[in-house]
Amino acid sequence: MTTLKNDRFLRALFRQPVDVTPVWMMRQAGRYLPEYRATRKKAGDFLTLCKTPELACEVTLQPLDRYALDAAILFSDILTIPDAMGLGLYFAEGEGPHFEHPVRTKADVDKLAVPDIADELDYVTDAVRVIRRELDGRVPLIGFSGSPWTLATYMVEGGTSKDFAKVKGMLFDEPDTLHRLLDILARTVTDYLNAQIEAGAQAIMIFDTWGGALTPRDYKAFSLAYMQQIVEHLQRAHDGVRVPIILFTKGGGAWLEAMADTGCDALGLDWTVDIGDARRRVGDRVALQGNMDPALLYAQPARIREEVATILTAFGSGNGHVFNLGHGIHPQIDPEHVSAFIDAVHELSVPFHTS
Amino acid sequence: MTTLKNDRFLRALFRQPVDVTPVWMMRQAGRYLPEYRATRKKAGDFLTLCKTPELACEVTLQPLDRYALDAAILFSDILTIPDAMGLGLYFAEGEGPHFEHPVRTKADVDKLAVPDIADELDYVTDAVRVIRRELDGRVPLIGFSGSPWTLATYMVEGGTSKDFAKVKGMLFDEPDTLHRLLDILARTVTDYLNAQIEAGAQAIMIFDTWGGALTPRDYKAFSLAYMQQIVEHLQRAHDGVRVPIILFTKGGGAWLEAMADTGCDALGLDWTVDIGDARRRVGDRVALQGNMDPALLYAQPARIREEVATILTAFGSGNGHVFNLGHGIHPQIDPEHVSAFIDAVHELSVPFHTS
Repeated sequence: MTTLKNDRFLRALFRQPVDVTPVWMMRQAGRYLPEYRATRKKAGDFLTLCKTPELACEVTLQPLDRYALDAAILFSDILTIPDAMGLGLYFAEGEGPHFEHPVRTKADVDKLAVPDIADELDYVTDAVRVIRRELDGRVPLIGFSGSPWTLATYMVEGGTSKDFAKVKGMLFDEPDTLHRLLDILARTVTDYLNAQIEAGAQAIMIFDTWGGALTPRDYKAFSLAYMQQIVEHLQRAHDGVRVPIILFTKGGGAWLEAMADTGCDALGLDWTVDIGDARRRVGDRVALQGNMDPALLYAQPARIREEVATILTAFGSGNGHVFNLGHGIHPQIDPEHVSAFIDAVHELSVPFHTS
Repeated sequence: MTTLKNDRFLRALFRQPVDVTPVWMMRQAGRYLPEYRATRKKAGDFLTLCKTPELACEVTLQPLDRYALDAAILFSDILTIPDAMGLGLYFAEGEGPHFEHPVRTKADVDKLAVPDIADELDYVTDAVRVIRRELDGRVPLIGFSGSPWTLATYMVEGGTSKDFAKVKGMLFDEPDTLHRLLDILARTVTDYLNAQIEAGAQAIMIFDTWGGALTPRDYKAFSLAYMQQIVEHLQRAHDGVRVPIILFTKGGGAWLEAMADTGCDALGLDWTVDIGDARRRVGDRVALQGNMDPALLYAQPARIREEVATILTAFGSGNGHVFNLGHGIHPQIDPEHVSAFIDAVHELSVPFHTS
């Protein structure tokens, strides 16, 4: 394997000393970049972009050529898993994702099985291999998946939802059916992420975008329990190198202690928690990733620097901070503002790493 | 004034003993009721419904005729205030609210003034008077307003927003302009709520629907500070009777202690906090209102009863609980499920009030 030229990101996740705070952005390969929009256009549609390893590699690397990012993240979509299960994923232009065959009943769930990753999702592991080759050790590559609960929301609702009427209806009235679905998903996500690790993913992130829509009791039973199951069954090392796991529940700021108890290596934070408070709460059990409001990137560069300084100060000195936005970068952001952001993290974090 | 026949709601807000836990629902006069849809149709459009006191009264009373609710809430819209400021509120069919003249610049803010409530919002105070007369003391009437921050989001964005790009852009780059806007709004809301109290509103609720979209720092500076200003300037009694104030920030579960410090009487809770934890955190400083997930009403009646029992047990014995949903009732809910909900609260709460 190629030697990693920049290992700040992995070191920070393991709470080891670094020279400056590493930084990357959720959805850093995305619509705010004109070169992404060009590749997207060349691909024809979004799913073709996801399913063509060379194009997925191209967009994965684009933000690294512009910015001094400390990690790359596989370009893909969380809904590749339900698509591989036969739900028929499609994107109507200008709308969110839809499924031709949503999962609504116990009979629907009974028909589902854990797909064979090598058969159904080889385009993802192929993309991981192509990206690792093309990255050539510049920065580590992050593999990812949606959480079982988050995937289930799309599968039961048939797409995005505002109120989760159908999936919560199943949760309340047919909890056993939902548990069965979540168990199948947890086993699939485990296989999927282990296949990404085998293919070369050097860190893993689980996105629980909709865990924050649940009550504390339901979050623990229907989202966190299945992320825990995944964490327990993931390969934590590959070729003798440790592979860190990051859990992120958007809107999950109240539950950080329970998330840290899963045995993951790091937690993603949205912007509704103070990162200093979060650090005091989780102690030295996990590293923290976050937590700038993505809307800050609408502000002028001087204001962006100010916010970066505020968050660095809130975290304080010492190890275990990966800087990131608290959610994906918005499509309307000026790419110049991203430069200001990334550079500010590196420049302003030096004093926090001198001891 | 007519004697109040059912004062459970007010007593619970003041943490006084009650026979059973009082209950009402946010948006209880709404689209889930066929009789509401009929009145809405008769009115022609939503704004006419809000602006015609007799029709507003009609829909306010509808849920009370069906259910054993312990409070009525004025039927109105939070955007009456920006409408009175001249922004030109309109509702496109099937869409959310829009403003003809959004507030985007310092010059736009400089043109705004605190409107004269008696001139511009007399249809609201008239509705309060008509409803009080027609209620004839059955239950207390709640008056309400949006919070300054929540109103500002609509005024700057020009309608609803997913990412608050414009108003957060103003917050980050022109905080003084936003503070000026929020101060005008806080003074307007104060006048508006005091006029509702004068007209007969027996409790006041401030809805901060979008405070949860802010960082902890920005929430305190741009939302909570202005709710505090309002709380400090509201009439806390009318005709010798105390008028309680409820603050509700959706997604504000992390900030309950700071909200209680404003000097309000009660806090609204969404469903992402455990009401027992919330009670331990705020102690006996405030009553708590909430906190059932509105999606629970999709479930079967037996499951609804189970959840009511869980929340009653989580709050525990003693005074200071008003049962409610954690947000407005969804339009697709079966009215029969609402009966099951309301009755369950009264039936199952008896043992919590015997000491």
